[in-house]
Amino acid sequence: MKNCFLTSHASTLNVKSMAVPSFRLSCTDIVKAKIIARIRPDLERIEREIEGHLSSSVPLISVVARHIMGSGGKRLRPLLMVLAARLCRYNGGQDAALSVVFEFLHAATLLHDDVVDNAEVRRSKPASNTIWGNPAAVLVGDFLYSKAVLLTVAHSNIRILEVFSKTTTLMAEGEVLQLVHSDNLEIDEKEYFEVITRKTAVLISAACQIGAILGNAGDSEEAALRDYGHHLGIAFQLVDDTLDYTGDVKELGKPVGNDFKEGKVTLPLIFAMTTSDDGVRERLRRAFNADEISAEFFGEVRDLVVRSGAIDHTLATADGHIRQAKEVLSIFPPSPTKELLTDIADFVLCRRM
Amino acid sequence: MKNCFLTSHASTLNVKSMAVPSFRLSCTDIVKAKIIARIRPDLERIEREIEGHLSSSVPLISVVARHIMGSGGKRLRPLLMVLAARLCRYNGGQDAALSVVFEFLHAATLLHDDVVDNAEVRRSKPASNTIWGNPAAVLVGDFLYSKAVLLTVAHSNIRILEVFSKTTTLMAEGEVLQLVHSDNLEIDEKEYFEVITRKTAVLISAACQIGAILGNAGDSEEAALRDYGHHLGIAFQLVDDTLDYTGDVKELGKPVGNDFKEGKVTLPLIFAMTTSDDGVRERLRRAFNADEISAEFFGEVRDLVVRSGAIDHTLATADGHIRQAKEVLSIFPPSPTKELLTDIADFVLCRRM
Repeated sequence: MKNCFLTSHASTLNVKSMAVPSFRLSCTDIVKAKIIARIRPDLERIEREIEGHLSSSVPLISVVARHIMGSGGKRLRPLLMVLAARLCRYNGGQDAALSVVFEFLHAATLLHDDVVDNAEVRRSKPASNTIWGNPAAVLVGDFLYSKAVLLTVAHSNIRILEVFSKTTTLMAEGEVLQLVHSDNLEIDEKEYFEVITRKTAVLISAACQIGAILGNAGDSEEAALRDYGHHLGIAFQLVDDTLDYTGDVKELGKPVGNDFKEGKVTLPLIFAMTTSDDGVRERLRRAFNADEISAEFFGEVRDLVVRSGAIDHTLATADGHIRQAKEVLSIFPPSPTKELLTDIADFVLCRRM
Repeated sequence: MKNCFLTSHASTLNVKSMAVPSFRLSCTDIVKAKIIARIRPDLERIEREIEGHLSSSVPLISVVARHIMGSGGKRLRPLLMVLAARLCRYNGGQDAALSVVFEFLHAATLLHDDVVDNAEVRRSKPASNTIWGNPAAVLVGDFLYSKAVLLTVAHSNIRILEVFSKTTTLMAEGEVLQLVHSDNLEIDEKEYFEVITRKTAVLISAACQIGAILGNAGDSEEAALRDYGHHLGIAFQLVDDTLDYTGDVKELGKPVGNDFKEGKVTLPLIFAMTTSDDGVRERLRRAFNADEISAEFFGEVRDLVVRSGAIDHTLATADGHIRQAKEVLSIFPPSPTKELLTDIADFVLCRRM
């Protein structure tokens, strides 16, 4: 996987075009296929659990919930919880039931994010708010969040509830923080990492930590899985932020340049702004402050960001976090589950969607 | 208090104008003064607890939270929880800390309601969404809800968490149900009661029930307080729905006719539609479906609704629920707290804001 990253990195530097580097494609496909074969049984259990909770006495809830939680989700968070529990020798039957809490929470944030961002497309489908309106997206988001609380409480484990509730509070603060920073081209790396920690990493970290708690892990095992999730989450978001500049619209399921157009300043842009000369910075600033930005205009922005080395810098930072994610797992003895968690970490770095 | 209701009832019938009946005014003022003197120490403890949780590392959260939770709130839900606990002989020091959960939850729903309804005014102040925009209102609402979960978890009581999480899920479903029914003049009484049970009564009922659980009440005491809260909540909403037709804009802190203009069909309108002749129904239908409705046009609607006896019918229904609320308290021996809960029930029927 190191090769995968390095080659992707080198090809981005060389081609200076925005085509997805071909090695990255094939590398991702191989790793993906290898992972999917092993996670299929867990994914099937998770899907069944999700489906079992999607009906409601209010039909609109079921329809919107199915739209946002239906096909296209990676189920990364529930899967990580299930695997974390297994790594800690959990052999009960409650893991899948608890794991879906993280998908419900995630879906709730997506619905509210779409309202906040006035999103038009999500996973190649019209965003829920464009079909059913903002009120339905806000209220069904509230329902999914409530359902997540209800499903967590059903496990009667105060430690799990403590981690869960601290996580959702940090996430909500992170969402407001991101809103405050939107349209602010002066945000620095520290503020950016604060936002992505709260909006992405804490939930993935909590999924892993709660898996450990379910598995009755010792303190050091629980801390290791919490940290694994944190580093994986940071890397996941960093890669996501590069894909907004270099991704393929079909694979992403949403247009590239979305973050830039929505005034979200991510690490690639921060790096380009702090390392480029005055002329480039001024062009980026003008594009960022423009009321409308055409595909061609964004193409120019993308070129400037890539030429600054920002994508390489961001992926190298993500690579550092993936290394740390794998490193913290060293306290666990070798096992198929540990190997799978390691492969998932590698995949996060090479993913294209 | 029966007199208060009856006199108000009679004067509404007689005057056929929309002036607030004078007896109702004085009756309310006397009852209010009597109640306020007794609840002041509890309200002060509740206010201190709320204030202690309003600061956040993200300043926008504190500003919006203070706006929605600042002056003007009745603190009815926290107060009922504290009193319910005391009625069940609770003498610990955690009641105020737990009670604020209900104010945080309530504030979260108000923020999201304002987004859903495109509200302009709330408690005589501009609604949060009009000052800080829909994104901030949605996300700070999410924060307040998360905070409510966090504060409830801190009490480490699974029974309380079960009631809490069932309640919030029912509430969220109720909000969607109300959205589905909006602009639907054909909604019947059964559907209306389903909506108001979920959107208003379940939270007030949960506050009372959780107070009982905190006080280690027996099953019958817990059930009695849950039912007291339910009937009080239904009556509270019924009175609220009459105030949208007959209230005073200054006392209400929001314009009258709000529900009607927002396409919310409440019991007064349902009653008027089902009991009036075809001509009146057609005039009401035309007003309801109009794109814009002037103050004068709403005045006509109000006259038609009042003349149909709908306000009397709705207040009589509320009176029935207040009687039941007081009746279920009969299992408790006489005490100052029981008397206060009885007076609060009477006040709900006579309130003007």
